[in-house]
Amino acid sequence: MSKLRYGVAYYDEYMPYERLNEDIAMMKETGINVVRIAESTWSTHEPQNGVFDFSSVDRVLDAMHAAGIEVIVGTPTYAVPTWLVKEHPDVLAVTAKGPGRYGARQIMDITNPVYLFHAERIIRKLISRVCKHPAVIGYQTDNETKHYDTAGDNVQLQFVKYMREKYDSLDIINSRFGLDYWSNRINSWEDFPSIVGTINGSLGAEFARFQRGLVTNFLAWQVALVNEYKQPGQFVTQNFDFEWRGYSFGVQPSVDHFAAAEPFDIAGVDIYHPSQHELTGTEISFGGDMARSLKRSNYLVLETQAQAFPQWTPYPGQLRLQAFSHLASGADMVAYWHWHSIHNSFETYWKGLLSHDFKPNPVYNEAKTIGRDFQALSNQLAGLRKDNKVAVMVSNEALTAMEWFKLPDGKTYNNVVRWMYDELYRMNIECDFIQPSYKELNQYSLIVVPALYAAPDADLERLNAYVKQGGHVVYSFKSGFTDEVVKVRTVEQPGIISEACGIGYSLFVSPHEVPLKSAHADIGAEDNHVETWMELITSTTAEVLLSYDHPAYGDYAAVTRNRYGLGTATYIGCMTSSAMVGSVLKSTVKEAGLWSSDQELSFPIIVKKGTNRAQQTVRYYFNYSNAAVSFTNIHVEGTELLSGREVNKGEKLSLEPWGFLILLEKQ
Amino acid sequence: MSKLRYGVAYYDEYMPYERLNEDIAMMKETGINVVRIAESTWSTHEPQNGVFDFSSVDRVLDAMHAAGIEVIVGTPTYAVPTWLVKEHPDVLAVTAKGPGRYGARQIMDITNPVYLFHAERIIRKLISRVCKHPAVIGYQTDNETKHYDTAGDNVQLQFVKYMREKYDSLDIINSRFGLDYWSNRINSWEDFPSIVGTINGSLGAEFARFQRGLVTNFLAWQVALVNEYKQPGQFVTQNFDFEWRGYSFGVQPSVDHFAAAEPFDIAGVDIYHPSQHELTGTEISFGGDMARSLKRSNYLVLETQAQAFPQWTPYPGQLRLQAFSHLASGADMVAYWHWHSIHNSFETYWKGLLSHDFKPNPVYNEAKTIGRDFQALSNQLAGLRKDNKVAVMVSNEALTAMEWFKLPDGKTYNNVVRWMYDELYRMNIECDFIQPSYKELNQYSLIVVPALYAAPDADLERLNAYVKQGGHVVYSFKSGFTDEVVKVRTVEQPGIISEACGIGYSLFVSPHEVPLKSAHADIGAEDNHVETWMELITSTTAEVLLSYDHPAYGDYAAVTRNRYGLGTATYIGCMTSSAMVGSVLKSTVKEAGLWSSDQELSFPIIVKKGTNRAQQTVRYYFNYSNAAVSFTNIHVEGTELLSGREVNKGEKLSLEPWGFLILLEKQ
Amino acid sequence: MSKLRYGVAYYDEYMPYERLNEDIAMMKETGINVVRIAESTWSTHEPQNGVFDFSSVDRVLDAMHAAGIEVIVGTPTYAVPTWLVKEHPDVLAVTAKGPGRYGARQIMDITNPVYLFHAERIIRKLISRVCKHPAVIGYQTDNETKHYDTAGDNVQLQFVKYMREKYDSLDIINSRFGLDYWSNRINSWEDFPSIVGTINGSLGAEFARFQRGLVTNFLAWQVALVNEYKQPGQFVTQNFDFEWRGYSFGVQPSVDHFAAAEPFDIAGVDIYHPSQHELTGTEISFGGDMARSLKRSNYLVLETQAQAFPQWTPYPGQLRLQAFSHLASGADMVAYWHWHSIHNSFETYWKGLLSHDFKPNPVYNEAKTIGRDFQALSNQLAGLRKDNKVAVMVSNEALTAMEWFKLPDGKTYNNVVRWMYDELYRMNIECDFIQPSYKELNQYSLIVVPALYAAPDADLERLNAYVKQGGHVVYSFKSGFTDEVVKVRTVEQPGIISEACGIGYSLFVSPHEVPLKSAHADIGAEDNHVETWMELITSTTAEVLLSYDHPAYGDYAAVTRNRYGLGTATYIGCMTSSAMVGSVLKSTVKEAGLWSSDQELSFPIIVKKGTNRAQQTVRYYFNYSNAAVSFTNIHVEGTELLSGREVNKGEKLSLEPWGFLILLEKQ
Repeated sequence: MSKLRYGVAYYDEYMPYERLNEDIAMMKETGINVVRIAESTWSTHEPQNGVFDFSSVDRVLDAMHAAGIEVIVGTPTYAVPTWLVKEHPDVLAVTAKGPGRYGARQIMDITNPVYLFHAERIIRKLISRVCKHPAVIGYQTDNETKHYDTAGDNVQLQFVKYMREKYDSLDIINSRFGLDYWSNRINSWEDFPSIVGTINGSLGAEFARFQRGLVTNFLAWQVALVNEYKQPGQFVTQNFDFEWRGYSFGVQPSVDHFAAAEPFDIAGVDIYHPSQHELTGTEISFGGDMARSLKRSNYLVLETQAQAFPQWTPYPGQLRLQAFSHLASGADMVAYWHWHSIHNSFETYWKGLLSHDFKPNPVYNEAKTIGRDFQALSNQLAGLRKDNKVAVMVSNEALTAMEWFKLPDGKTYNNVVRWMYDELYRMNIECDFIQPSYKELNQYSLIVVPALYAAPDADLERLNAYVKQGGHVVYSFKSGFTDEVVKVRTVEQPGIISEACGIGYSLFVSPHEVPLKSAHADIGAEDNHVETWMELITSTTAEVLLSYDHPAYGDYAAVTRNRYGLGTATYIGCMTSSAMVGSVLKSTVKEAGLWSSDQELSFPIIVKKGTNRAQQTVRYYFNYSNAAVSFTNIHVEGTELLSGREVNKGEKLSLEPWGFLILLEKQ
Repeated sequence: MSKLRYGVAYYDEYMPYERLNEDIAMMKETGINVVRIAESTWSTHEPQNGVFDFSSVDRVLDAMHAAGIEVIVGTPTYAVPTWLVKEHPDVLAVTAKGPGRYGARQIMDITNPVYLFHAERIIRKLISRVCKHPAVIGYQTDNETKHYDTAGDNVQLQFVKYMREKYDSLDIINSRFGLDYWSNRINSWEDFPSIVGTINGSLGAEFARFQRGLVTNFLAWQVALVNEYKQPGQFVTQNFDFEWRGYSFGVQPSVDHFAAAEPFDIAGVDIYHPSQHELTGTEISFGGDMARSLKRSNYLVLETQAQAFPQWTPYPGQLRLQAFSHLASGADMVAYWHWHSIHNSFETYWKGLLSHDFKPNPVYNEAKTIGRDFQALSNQLAGLRKDNKVAVMVSNEALTAMEWFKLPDGKTYNNVVRWMYDELYRMNIECDFIQPSYKELNQYSLIVVPALYAAPDADLERLNAYVKQGGHVVYSFKSGFTDEVVKVRTVEQPGIISEACGIGYSLFVSPHEVPLKSAHADIGAEDNHVETWMELITSTTAEVLLSYDHPAYGDYAAVTRNRYGLGTATYIGCMTSSAMVGSVLKSTVKEAGLWSSDQELSFPIIVKKGTNRAQQTVRYYFNYSNAAVSFTNIHVEGTELLSGREVNKGEKLSLEPWGFLILLEKQ
Repeated sequence: MSKLRYGVAYYDEYMPYERLNEDIAMMKETGINVVRIAESTWSTHEPQNGVFDFSSVDRVLDAMHAAGIEVIVGTPTYAVPTWLVKEHPDVLAVTAKGPGRYGARQIMDITNPVYLFHAERIIRKLISRVCKHPAVIGYQTDNETKHYDTAGDNVQLQFVKYMREKYDSLDIINSRFGLDYWSNRINSWEDFPSIVGTINGSLGAEFARFQRGLVTNFLAWQVALVNEYKQPGQFVTQNFDFEWRGYSFGVQPSVDHFAAAEPFDIAGVDIYHPSQHELTGTEISFGGDMARSLKRSNYLVLETQAQAFPQWTPYPGQLRLQAFSHLASGADMVAYWHWHSIHNSFETYWKGLLSHDFKPNPVYNEAKTIGRDFQALSNQLAGLRKDNKVAVMVSNEALTAMEWFKLPDGKTYNNVVRWMYDELYRMNIECDFIQPSYKELNQYSLIVVPALYAAPDADLERLNAYVKQGGHVVYSFKSGFTDEVVKVRTVEQPGIISEACGIGYSLFVSPHEVPLKSAHADIGAEDNHVETWMELITSTTAEVLLSYDHPAYGDYAAVTRNRYGLGTATYIGCMTSSAMVGSVLKSTVKEAGLWSSDQELSFPIIVKKGTNRAQQTVRYYFNYSNAAVSFTNIHVEGTELLSGREVNKGEKLSLEPWGFLILLEKQ
């Protein structure tokens, strides 16, 4: 399966006039070798209950196959047809805002048996029909599946049973969740109230975990259905997406990506990101690192932007830069959402490779160069393997808990994740993502732990042991504060990890005009300030790296590093400027022995590397700026793959604005 | 009917104590010669179902008649009585927000038969009673009628029938509205979902058009009822209002003013506007141009502000300036909302001519001078006719469509309309408003077309033909983009009008630090920037007036002008500063041969002209500033009507702060 | 009862593990001599309908008694148990937002008989059980009781009956409330609509008054129940709270504190306030003055902050400063909410004296010095009496009315109250709060009346008479504008008080760049501007202190003072800077003969004085800043109580940052 794929989502059903042959001809010209179809159009494929019409699927499969274009077929279950909702309005999710109403996608109760009955039927009909078609290489189940906040009576009933199954007794629940507070105690299972009104953050967070479990179960159910038909060589994937802040920002709150990815053959994602003067590549790297980590393997970018919105339509060169950045993170496929721009309804301004006029345009023309290069370099670039020594530990549980207990200025978990991740990206430290439950910590030299606010004892003890055995950890503030049901630990903070960190604190305040003082940090005054949160730390055995420059808090530590066993634990007790946390991370990277010549380069020069199937080292050098930059090749001689030119060690290399080079090392 | 009327809304029912004779005495002193009554007080006139009490109407009519004050009687249907809602709660409109609740006005379902039955009865009772009263000169139906977002089950049912009637088949609907998208396809009429949840902009826009049709029908029904009683010489009018942004801002989204105005004898409007240091007269001009265009005749200002809110209470001189500005736009009546200030309930701070103490006050005293001058100058000023050579083309359909597909920074259709209209106003170019369906385009030399985002082919082709035959058009960005069901055209943009404009584009982006470059525009750097939207235009035959000063977009045109047949089509592909669009409009006005000496004056000196019934040219010169200004009379000699003074050609004339002159040309 | 109490709220039920003995040992170490228990935990005390378990109460009472710590027992009725809501969902208040849902506290309909039945039973069970326990010194009914916007059908029915009882006829109601407006007239009692949708401010305000009456009734009902069990020497109190703007800001909108306080033995309050660099002491003074005024006696601070939120955790010294500031206002008890920090649920970050780790911490350590000093100085400081000559007149009715008729920039009644109160505080003028209905006005030399927007004639006439007899009044703008049903007076403004003020106005505007002109005011240009509101005042007999510096409004007065009978009435017709209103108040204080040497000191030096039970004068000098300050003792010699040091007249005294001194005058 390891070859480079260049694709688009293709909706024959949406076309304003017959376009199939002409579209395929243009795709071939562009180097498109895979299309993704069928996931959005249930009402077309089943126009009435039990009446099926797959003609648009059939004809697309046949035509694509004739043209040598492969097809990924989606199960069309994430948008329900009008007749289903008219017959059974209760297929729509009841949420905290009340009953649903028809119109948007992703509004159903994914536990509703009426929905599941019809979903199963259309899946079986569609997949059984297409599975032996030679164009079909794989399947996507549903799309960007989430739980859509489903919380109606039936879901509440399931939750009560889940709670009894998990905790056994109400006494335990009352005690662990703190239900005595404000008379929320439940003394009989029949009294269990709906969670939609709860003010109990522990209960709310447990319900969110339960809801994420619904997604895991739903996807596993779909995969099992599809697997009944899957042929040898075909794969099943899912289009995972990220916390959406107008673009793919961070860890997905509503889905446990690691658990949900389990039954799939390969992970898929969509990644959308700022562009034009705001293009940094960070989200491509973040989303790619996450997708690659889910199954610890290569992944598919099932959707990313071609033109998309007015603020995202790329400058010349950016589309190429973006495509190869995906490859550099380990993607084996880059597909655009979508081929053509939709002429009405809703996502009319989420433009595809083609504008509404279907004519070649500058973005399309640039795509042709990408298709050409993907084809030429597929052998050298597909199946890139990473051996990262740094991991970032992320947690749905910490994220949800911090939604309940927000930072004073409204920042959330993902702000802390990105605050740390982005600095690693800028200093060209590549990393994997792991969950707190991950057992093989010692395959990493450094683990970065942003705001691990809620975690069970065992996971924190494992981190202590990891340090003792020689690992290096950087924690941010708020790590270790509560247990897995978001109950604050009753010992001095940061609780269990105090042992490895060699510190303690019991007070925390909101910063007001607080700089940090240090002989170490090489940070100018404009970048030296604390924001959002500061813990008043006392060191027991740790070295104080930075302390607060403040009349009342001058004796407290802000950032510490403790040697514990064979490793070190660094603790950052406050939110700082990017430059400041970057400086701390830099010193930790050095401490962990991971500083190399690639770190002498930094953003806007981004370096990504890996090993191809021929066990050759491939290095990408990207220029994320609109000015030309240059650098010296400090590695062994090799070949620049785009130009085919030989490059010597020590040779000075130039990058065009938004340009890049790919160096294949001589072995 | 052509005489100047000076009026107030008068609510005998709201008076805290017996005031009628005293109020009339004060009105006479002010020169008030018309009052508007009865439109708000159904519950007073019908205290219980079928029990009627019109004593307050009777006594006001008698007393006004005795004093020689004319009366316009309103049908009291825009605010329903308590007993009606208690008996039939379903008279309240069900909207996307759920069922209505009693309290405010304008909350009923205007299609509800229970409401219509009772409305018809009170209308017949009231109008039959008053129609032969000698005080009554006309009627107002309802007030500021809109559809109040009515969208309950009965309305949805009507909409389905409307759709079948209009489009005949679901196949056509599915195709034209793009319902395959996100599985919204409707394959059986029974499956038609409620539109309140739709994400389909085409369907949503069609529903809005249907809702506007409900208003047209409702008003026509009322007019037909009233016409049964209307006596010779009496008129029926409607109080139309505008998009409300804390004041009368732009085209009314919920009503097709042109269609709704059809059955009326004369158009009426309310116009409210910023005042004090923010008074510019723009809204008086905008609202007046619209009202005059509805029936292409003079109109009534049924409501405008006397004191109104703290921020609107006029500076000395402003009330006079405002009153005569209405006349200068073609109003034959200026009436205040309202006579006295209300002592409790809701609009307590929307003060009338009198404060709550009913005593003379500075605003009232200034009104007395207006009443005096209206009376003195009625013969010369009433029935002013315009022969404007410039029209602004506006469209409810484009407005609604742009609500669905908002500009990236949240600006809407009316922002674009005002961006262009305001510059015409400032350069003293008077204009009419027309709809895209208007056939007699060639009566204009220049048509300004802001953001005509949705329009049928025929209307755009008519514009092409108009240019070919010698007309001049200025389009803003986004014009021509979609058809009448908001489906994006499948050809190169701007679609049909590309032919006349001599341009094409398929990409558009959000500006970020983009100035324009041009040898032509006389605009300083501070006014040279693009905002909101920019289209990347390629000229085919057009002259490029301005292009983008940007590394990636420097080759694209921003503003073009194309000679096509005997005329020109100017296309403004981006939003600019006011000064910049003003500069483009100025050059187009010159191109159209409309630049005259009046354009040598500009805001704050505002010039309005027309022909009175004696076929004399009347010119108003307004000073919209708090500094004295002067100008030279470049027209033939005439009489200044306020002072009676003769004015020579070439004479220098002065305007006091917030002052004005009226020159009657010698014939 | 007059001794100093130092307390905490204590929740044995919330403890994560057995802590009672250890907690009590730490309390003893801190000097805690009273705890408040039981008000939040109904579901623990009655785990099922009719099943009671007071074991946590019993054991806490026994243990506290053994340790010599007194206990205040709360009735646990402000948070309802799960089983009650499951059995009877209608115990939850139906509000304008719809039906309630379980989760939060304070969500019930306090008029619902199901709720009342169960509340009465648990109150009787609990109070009968504990009343003879020797640890119990008193009771708190419910907690921060309000009406929770209850407005369901049953409440609407009660309101109709209330209206008939109060106003007798619909004719009167229609007339006084202005219901003719917008057809809101009610012509039959059966037609009375629900008030949740009303747009009639008079009706809305009356409903709010009715709702406040529900609170008064509910609390009186609880007090009567508790009184059946109350033993000699025990008291019943209520924890009143203030308008909440993230802290205790102003007059409570939902409760008539004066009426509600009637049946209680002693008033209690909670006071939360900004801290750290934003600590000014103003809210401590404001809340204390209000609490002391309710029963014109000493009061209990039942809750105030220990650590609380990150932005409130006190700097060193601030906890002491705060505690003694409460005493200086007349508190006899200072209790923290709460002892320990809660480990989960909702108020996890509203930290107590102890952090989540239960260990001593800097705040706890500072509390120990407070406990020590309270004990040492109880005899000299408890039962402090005030004899204030200044009163601030506040009104729930004015507050509600101004919610309906907001100031143009969104400021509300409490903004005006605080604008005036804060300046009195800063110039060390101590004051009481009185309501407009208060009869004994002549016990004050000066009455400050902020925005008394709604008031009956009699109350305003009483103020006129007060001035005539030698009193001094300062009114702010908007005073006297409407009557008790928020109907604007029909005479020249400010209506009835015009007589004493010697002014009139009928116009008011929004200021735009308006300074004031005066020979008098000693205010720099940066503080000289009008905001929010300005009345265009004409003096009849008043002296014009300040007038508007504006081309259109230059002839109008802004601030006036009128000699009327033996006193003066000062009228401030606009909102000014703090410095400007401070200057006006200063001149009024002098006019009233109240300027003394203590006013030569001003914020950040705050002086509070009173008479202790030994009839000695006690003076507190607080430094509300982080810089040391000094001042001269201009009073007779005395003893500084904290140090025991003798202080002479004329001696210079120093205050540490956030420090204070207490001088006991020699008699």
